[in-house]
Amino acid sequence: MSKRLAKSFNCSTEFTLQVLGGKWKTVILCHLTMGPLRYTELRKLMPALSDKVLTHRLRELIDAGLIARERPGKGQPESYALAAKGRSLKAALKSLYDWGETHAAAFGVKVGHPLRDLRKEDQ
Amino acid sequence: MSKRLAKSFNCSTEFTLQVLGGKWKTVILCHLTMGPLRYTELRKLMPALSDKVLTHRLRELIDAGLIARERPGKGQPESYALAAKGRSLKAALKSLYDWGETHAAAFGVKVGHPLRDLRKEDQ
Repeated sequence: MSKRLAKSFNCSTEFTLQVLGGKWKTVILCHLTMGPLRYTELRKLMPALSDKVLTHRLRELIDAGLIARERPGKGQPESYALAAKGRSLKAALKSLYDWGETHAAAFGVKVGHPLRDLRKEDQ
Repeated sequence: MSKRLAKSFNCSTEFTLQVLGGKWKTVILCHLTMGPLRYTELRKLMPALSDKVLTHRLRELIDAGLIARERPGKGQPESYALAAKGRSLKAALKSLYDWGETHAAAFGVKVGHPLRDLRKEDQ
């Protein structure tokens, strides 16, 4: 079970950050804004993450009602997708992604595009 | 000294989250999007934070070039304000705040407005 959400927060930002729940859960949610992903795909998108941690974070996101497992059709592989609560975070998640994309060069930083690379692999 | 920023990140979101640097630094930056604040004001806005941690987080944000100390005029108290790099994060920070503001009720959560309360105190 994930930790129960507090009933009151000192400010809105503290609440949002608590819902996002830290770095890896935010990164997982961000990838899922682009559409459902299978476990093996999520694994490739976050190579720094161990199976144990990824499984744990996915379980916490499901318990929090932010994502859900779905099976598009019989025999098709199960995937993870944003649930309604998770979809409500799309604009905020996009703004985090967009800032990184726009400002990486000014910080002398290179950022990868693992989802784009994954889609190319699939073609 | 704050930890040096890595030269490459697996994706844009991971980079943004590294720059924001965790919960309290993000909350401090969020408050500063509304204008410069004195140390004693920041202290009131984040009562859960100890002096030691607040001082440390402010030092890290200065070292990262996201905020700067400023003194509006001779004899006036020093305050903290967003530096250019910090200002570039305004839209992302606002989207985190706005999401919390909009969705707290749906999560059965109450959020405070410490900055508004502080301004009322000043009047």
